[in-house]
Amino acid sequence: MVTWHAERAWIGAMADDVLIETDGDRITAVTAGVPAPDDAVRLSGLALPGLVNAHSHAFHRALRGRTHEPGDFWRWRELMYQVASALDPDRYRALATATFAEMALAGITTVGEFHYLHHRSEGRAYEDPNAMGLALVDAARAAGIRLTLLDTCYLRGGMRNADLDAAQLRFADADVDAWAGRVDALSGNDTTKIGAAIHSVRAVDPGSMARVAEVAHGSQQPLHIHVSEQAKENEECVAVFGMSPTELVADRGVLGPRTTIVHGTHVSALDIELLATTRSRVCMCPTTERDLGDGVGPAAAFVGGGIEVSLGSDGQSTIDLFEEARAVEMNERLITERRGIHDPVTLLAAATDNGARSLGWDAGAIAAGRLCDLITLDPESPRLATCPDVAGIIAAATAADVRDVVVGGVAIVRDGRHLGVPDVGAALKDSIEVLFA
Amino acid sequence: MVTWHAERAWIGAMADDVLIETDGDRITAVTAGVPAPDDAVRLSGLALPGLVNAHSHAFHRALRGRTHEPGDFWRWRELMYQVASALDPDRYRALATATFAEMALAGITTVGEFHYLHHRSEGRAYEDPNAMGLALVDAARAAGIRLTLLDTCYLRGGMRNADLDAAQLRFADADVDAWAGRVDALSGNDTTKIGAAIHSVRAVDPGSMARVAEVAHGSQQPLHIHVSEQAKENEECVAVFGMSPTELVADRGVLGPRTTIVHGTHVSALDIELLATTRSRVCMCPTTERDLGDGVGPAAAFVGGGIEVSLGSDGQSTIDLFEEARAVEMNERLITERRGIHDPVTLLAAATDNGARSLGWDAGAIAAGRLCDLITLDPESPRLATCPDVAGIIAAATAADVRDVVVGGVAIVRDGRHLGVPDVGAALKDSIEVLFA
Repeated sequence: MVTWHAERAWIGAMADDVLIETDGDRITAVTAGVPAPDDAVRLSGLALPGLVNAHSHAFHRALRGRTHEPGDFWRWRELMYQVASALDPDRYRALATATFAEMALAGITTVGEFHYLHHRSEGRAYEDPNAMGLALVDAARAAGIRLTLLDTCYLRGGMRNADLDAAQLRFADADVDAWAGRVDALSGNDTTKIGAAIHSVRAVDPGSMARVAEVAHGSQQPLHIHVSEQAKENEECVAVFGMSPTELVADRGVLGPRTTIVHGTHVSALDIELLATTRSRVCMCPTTERDLGDGVGPAAAFVGGGIEVSLGSDGQSTIDLFEEARAVEMNERLITERRGIHDPVTLLAAATDNGARSLGWDAGAIAAGRLCDLITLDPESPRLATCPDVAGIIAAATAADVRDVVVGGVAIVRDGRHLGVPDVGAALKDSIEVLFA
Repeated sequence: MVTWHAERAWIGAMADDVLIETDGDRITAVTAGVPAPDDAVRLSGLALPGLVNAHSHAFHRALRGRTHEPGDFWRWRELMYQVASALDPDRYRALATATFAEMALAGITTVGEFHYLHHRSEGRAYEDPNAMGLALVDAARAAGIRLTLLDTCYLRGGMRNADLDAAQLRFADADVDAWAGRVDALSGNDTTKIGAAIHSVRAVDPGSMARVAEVAHGSQQPLHIHVSEQAKENEECVAVFGMSPTELVADRGVLGPRTTIVHGTHVSALDIELLATTRSRVCMCPTTERDLGDGVGPAAAFVGGGIEVSLGSDGQSTIDLFEEARAVEMNERLITERRGIHDPVTLLAAATDNGARSLGWDAGAIAAGRLCDLITLDPESPRLATCPDVAGIIAAATAADVRDVVVGGVAIVRDGRHLGVPDVGAALKDSIEVLFA
């Protein structure tokens, strides 16, 4: 059984000379202040729990740097649909492998993939109706990171008009039972979990929403749903259903301790109360929310209400969970003109422990009983030098400061190099350029 | 004379195989589409003009990661004053050398140092009254970057109460003539220019302000001034002088084509008109403005009014001009919920050409007649792969993607390593930890 020894590690406090014993993929004991035994694998620098990216659409990586033109979220969505149309299982696997490898280099050890690219372009199922989801499973394995595949129910084009537009045909199952049947054929493994998702109150009618929730809750799976990313969604929901998206999903039994609403940018005080009383979770994606002009979500109100916030790279304009954590604080500073709104330890938990719970993994902390998912930072990098504690890490660390990444006791990145995908830049280029050829 | 050959370069357009001929420190000709002559120094990757950091307080680097506590700008200022009190010329030189070396690694080839730490802690002059400023000159030379030393006039503690508090004593000259006399003893060299600054409408009375402007304009020096970073400054200025800070400085002859107002976060439409009609410049520092909870400045209104915007790392919470350029766009997206507000080419100019003009250097572009200040990015980094054009660079590049840095035809960074300060992390640590010992 491998034993790890970290020069310095965050184990709920900062500690030096930390011995991390495992039974292979799980931590059995953590002891600070002991010298490294001869057979320990040494981790130099500063060890943290592996980062958890609780909301990803891997294929959006293809859009990075290509959507800078005037417009709004809805114009961006058209460009995103164009990329979606160019994918098949092989291209999807290649793109997701490269994207997940970029995540690994950034210290992400677990990703929640909110997956709705299910079928062929015209909506017909692949021979294996889960071919696209399985491509993601393969990709995560190739990149060495854990995956919660949040298989997403998508049924209609909008709240007022049920018709799917051409680009949306491949997202949709025939009905909620078809979705449930398809998902039932998927199964997890030691590094994969199957979870459920409702795309949004736009894409799933209230009755089907209730059924997805029943399925997910019944099998104790994580359940995710996009909620109130855009003010327009709220307006439509009030007009059509007489209540906010959060009120609607609460009404249909979607909320609960295994449920995570994604974004929650434009939620009301009543919505926040509903999330708090149902012990639901929120995943914020602040770099995407600024990229897409969504606005600044009420992170302080979530945390103040006892709601656990996790973080996601979502649209992949940036893959850097340190930047996400920092942006939670910085975006609110811009709005409130106050500093020090969030405790840095809470922000680090958002990037680790809270994400792990949202995705159903016993990971996210360097502690006995947790999976052995670790990363190290270079504390001598010009960015981090003199920032030795959690406040400093949240203030200054970037994806580029990650040196080593361990998932389930297996090193997947050493000294900034991915051991399974040797040239991540080339993998990204090869898998993306073909989509625009 | 050294000739450079870039695989790909931004020369107002993206071009491949770019030959850059020099007479040593200045570019004499730029030709695209030619193979590399045998004697050319090859630059692999993507070459850009060197980045220009138009507003820096080098010593604030010591605060990175140490000010995360509840409060506002004014509380942060107390912490900053504590660090200021711990500096003497030797410590200042060491800290600034390390900080400027971090800038060099981030692709910054010119810095504007807004310098007001002039005297001993109790306010007495050093034997050489410019000992602190000369420490900055030494530091920039050691780090290999150009410096415009914006020697700052600081005379009083506030608009209502002229008394300096204890921490401010060392910032202040006896009066504006004492300031002018001291600055007169400074002189530039091939990589140093002397410019002037008025700290703010808080720290300099209107009469003295007019005199500083007269001196600076008379010698055609750059003149910088902090304006309207905080709403409180506006309120006080209106209460005491019956006009906004911008109106006040306009009234006293401070504005003009060599003048840069720094921040301008809380300016009015009339203020913007005054800046535009006087052909004044604005330096925005968006990562500092979010760190300090200043708010979001009206970048689109500045650009729309024909005002050239440059960028500064200011408080050094981040030293990454790509992030500054990106934040100009992203901060406005958060407020307006619109995308694509600024042309990426304009944002790149803010980080290069506009900064060079603000600081008085013929740099900031790869073009005949300009100083040969260049950087390269690694276009295969996981962040940048598939982002080959300016929109992609503004969307995705970070300081960590800078590989080579050339200042005046001399390489100061090669493959991400500083040639003059071999361990920048250690230099930062050594120079900062002593201040908190």
